[in-house]
Amino acid sequence: MSLSTKPYIGSRDFYPDQMKFRNWMFGVQAEVCRRYGYSEYAAPLIEPLDLYRAKSSEEIVSEQLYRFTDRGEREIAIRPELTPTLARMVAARINELPRPLRWFSVGNFMRYERPGRGRLREFFQLNVDLLGPDDFTADAEVLMLAIDLMRAYGASPEHFEVRYSDRRLLEAYLSDYDTEKIRAISRVIDKRAKIKPAEFEEQLATACGDDAGVAKVKKLLALTTESVAELPADELDPEIAGRISKFAEFLREQGYGDGLVFDPGIVRGFDYYTGLIFEMYDRDPENNRALFGGGRYNRLVGMFGKQEIPAVGFGMGDVTLENFIVSHGLAPAELGEARGAYIALMSADLAGPVAKLARELRTVGIDVEVALEATKKFGKQFELAEKKGRRFMLILGETELENGVVRVKDLKSGEQQDVPRQDLAAALGG
Amino acid sequence: MSLSTKPYIGSRDFYPDQMKFRNWMFGVQAEVCRRYGYSEYAAPLIEPLDLYRAKSSEEIVSEQLYRFTDRGEREIAIRPELTPTLARMVAARINELPRPLRWFSVGNFMRYERPGRGRLREFFQLNVDLLGPDDFTADAEVLMLAIDLMRAYGASPEHFEVRYSDRRLLEAYLSDYDTEKIRAISRVIDKRAKIKPAEFEEQLATACGDDAGVAKVKKLLALTTESVAELPADELDPEIAGRISKFAEFLREQGYGDGLVFDPGIVRGFDYYTGLIFEMYDRDPENNRALFGGGRYNRLVGMFGKQEIPAVGFGMGDVTLENFIVSHGLAPAELGEARGAYIALMSADLAGPVAKLARELRTVGIDVEVALEATKKFGKQFELAEKKGRRFMLILGETELENGVVRVKDLKSGEQQDVPRQDLAAALGG
Repeated sequence: MSLSTKPYIGSRDFYPDQMKFRNWMFGVQAEVCRRYGYSEYAAPLIEPLDLYRAKSSEEIVSEQLYRFTDRGEREIAIRPELTPTLARMVAARINELPRPLRWFSVGNFMRYERPGRGRLREFFQLNVDLLGPDDFTADAEVLMLAIDLMRAYGASPEHFEVRYSDRRLLEAYLSDYDTEKIRAISRVIDKRAKIKPAEFEEQLATACGDDAGVAKVKKLLALTTESVAELPADELDPEIAGRISKFAEFLREQGYGDGLVFDPGIVRGFDYYTGLIFEMYDRDPENNRALFGGGRYNRLVGMFGKQEIPAVGFGMGDVTLENFIVSHGLAPAELGEARGAYIALMSADLAGPVAKLARELRTVGIDVEVALEATKKFGKQFELAEKKGRRFMLILGETELENGVVRVKDLKSGEQQDVPRQDLAAALGG
Repeated sequence: MSLSTKPYIGSRDFYPDQMKFRNWMFGVQAEVCRRYGYSEYAAPLIEPLDLYRAKSSEEIVSEQLYRFTDRGEREIAIRPELTPTLARMVAARINELPRPLRWFSVGNFMRYERPGRGRLREFFQLNVDLLGPDDFTADAEVLMLAIDLMRAYGASPEHFEVRYSDRRLLEAYLSDYDTEKIRAISRVIDKRAKIKPAEFEEQLATACGDDAGVAKVKKLLALTTESVAELPADELDPEIAGRISKFAEFLREQGYGDGLVFDPGIVRGFDYYTGLIFEMYDRDPENNRALFGGGRYNRLVGMFGKQEIPAVGFGMGDVTLENFIVSHGLAPAELGEARGAYIALMSADLAGPVAKLARELRTVGIDVEVALEATKKFGKQFELAEKKGRRFMLILGETELENGVVRVKDLKSGEQQDVPRQDLAAALGG
C-alpha cells in the first residue's frame, strides 16, 4: 500500500488553523452582504455541460472545465463559476421571485488551471448579484458593497484601487470587427501592463490588421472621464457617457471615490458583460494584479427563453483574497486567541464526574474539551491544553470533588485558583 | 436555445428560503461540535480514485462514485464520503497534530444513487471524529455529541432511538466464514426488518449455506446486554462484553440512556469499522429508518503506512436530517421572522440621501435594502418589503429630509411614526 497523503494537485487540505481563517474570511462576506439586504442561496455542484457551452467563455469550456459523462450518459461538468447557474435558477422562478433580487452565495468551484500564486484548481468564490433594475444606482450599489468588503477586511485605498469602465466603449470603438477579432484585440489590451510597449505595439498591429484599428484602440485607451463626456454623439452614444459620469459622481458623493479609477483598458474575461465592468486591483507593487471583478450582464437570464432581467454582480475568489490579506498583514490577531476550557483527568474513576462537569459548562455556552486518558502528569496536560488553543485548564480531582470546587488555571495569565462549582461558569466567562 | 432550468438530477437549488433552513441546520451542528471542543476542518472535493479503492466499500467504488480522468490523465473521483480523506489528512501530519484530535466538517458530497426520499446524488454531510484514545469513554463522547445534536434540533426520545452494537460480535459469530460470505450474511441481516420472516429465513439459509451458520446468526440476533455479559470466554472475548456494558452504563449515568437500545443486528455499510457501531433511528412508524450512524474504525489511518491511530466518529447527512426535522414539525418558527429595513425611493433625486441613510444604518448593524426604482405608489413598496421579509419600511421623502426625520412603518404591528434621524437606529433595534 503506497497511498499518497497529499491533496489532489491544486486543491487544499484545510486543517483547523486554516479553517479558522477561512471561516473568518467567509463570515465577513456573509455579514457585509446581509447588511446590504442580500440573501444567501446555493446551487448544485454539477451542471449539464450545455449550460457552460451556452454561457461561459470559450477558454473555460475548452480548457478549464472538469467535464465528464455520468453513469446515465449525461454530459456534465463541475461548476467553474456560478453566474450561469444563477441565471438558470432565476429563469426557473422568474414569476415568483420578488424583484429586485439581491443574492449572494459562497461555494466551491473547479477549473483545470496550472496552479500558482493566486490560482488553484479548487477554489471558493463569493458571488454577489443584483437583478432587476438597469440603473447606475444598481451598478454603484454593487461596487460599494465590494469596496465595503475590502474595508471590512481592514483594507484602505492605500492597499487597493477600483478600476472601472463600460464594456460598450470597447464595442463602440471596435464595432468594425467581428467577435473573434474583438476577442483577439481584447486579449492584447488585457496584456498591455504585463508586456513591453514595443511588444504591445507589435501584437496590437497583428491583432487589428490595419492602422485605422490601431488608432482606434489607442484613442480608446487614452479616454478619460472628461474626454468621454465630450465625445460627439456619432462616436459614442451620449447615454453611455452620461451613465459613466453619473456612476462616478454618485460613488464620490457616497464616500467611495478614493482609489476609484476610470480605466477604458479593462477587459473582463467573460463574454456576457453588457455595461459596467470593474476590477479590484492590489496596489502592492509586488502583486499588481486584479483581485476580483465583475460587471453588468443584462442578457444572461433571457437566454433561457423567458424574459430578460438586467443584472450586475461580481465574484470574489478566496485564493487571491487570502494572498491579499496575508501580504498586507490584515489578518486579525484574535483569530489565534485561546478560548474555552480543557478538563484534565486524574484517574479513570473520575471520567463520570468530569463528563458531568463538561456538560454543565457546555449548557451555559462554554466550549469544553475533556481529557479521556487519565494522567497525574500536569505538565503534559497543560501543554496539550495550550497547544489546543484552550484558555483555561480545569482540574477536578478527588479533593476538589469533595470540597465542591474546581481548580482553574488561566493559561494566559498563569493564575490558578480553586473556584466553587456554582461560580465556575462566571469565572470562565460563560 | 432550449436550455433546461432544472437542476441536475438528484441535486438541489437552494433558493433563499431553503438556504435559511440549511444555514440553521448547519449552524446547530457547528455550535454543538464546538461546545464539545471539536475544531472545524475541510478537505478537497476531489481525491485520487485509489484512495476510495483502498478505503471505501465495494458498493461505493463500483456503483456510486462520480469518477473520471482529469486533463492530466489522473484517475480521480468526487468525494462520496469524508472518512478516507480524514485518514489521509491525519496521516500527513501525524507527528504534528496534538492528540486527541477532535474534528468536525460539513461539506458537499456526491454519490450516483437513485434519488428518492432521504436520498439524493449531491448531499451535505457533517462528519464528527475523535482520534487518539481507544476507550469506551471516547465512544460515549461521540455518541453523546450525536444525541445532543438531536436534542439541539428539538428532538427527544419520542422521536428517535439510538441502536448500538460492537462490530466484533458479528465477527466472533461468523468467524468461520470468509470476508465475502460475511458480507453476504450481513446484507441479509441488514434487510431483516424490511422483509417477511419467511423470506429472511430463506435468504439467511442461502447466504450461510449450512445450518450451523444459521443457528449462529440467530444466536447473535437474540443477544441482549445481559446475555452478552454471561457468554463464556471461548464464545466471546470478555473484553468486548465488558466494554459494551461499561459503555451503556456510562451513557445512562450521564443522562443519555433514554432510547438507547442494544441491537446486535446492526450492520453498517462500510468495511472499516472495528468496534462500536451505532445508528440513530427515526421512531416515526412512517419513516422507521436509520437517520445516520457511525462507529469505531481503528485501522484506517494506519493504512497510509504510518502508525495506527484509533478513531471513532459519525457522519450525518442533510437530506435524511431535513426529512426528520420537517416530518416531526421541529423547524423553528423564527426562521421565517421578518428582519431589517427596506427604504422606499420616492423620486430618483433622492437616491443619494437614501443611500446615505442606508449606510448610516448598516454601520450600526442593521440590514438595509434600498429601493432603486423611484415610485410614489406606497402600496407596492409595502408589499415588496413584506415579501422580502423585512420588518420595517422606511420613507425618506423631501419633507422628511427637511424635518430631519424618517417615517418608519413597522410591518409587523402596522404602526407608523416619524422618528428623528438620531433616534432611528434605536427605533429599529440596532
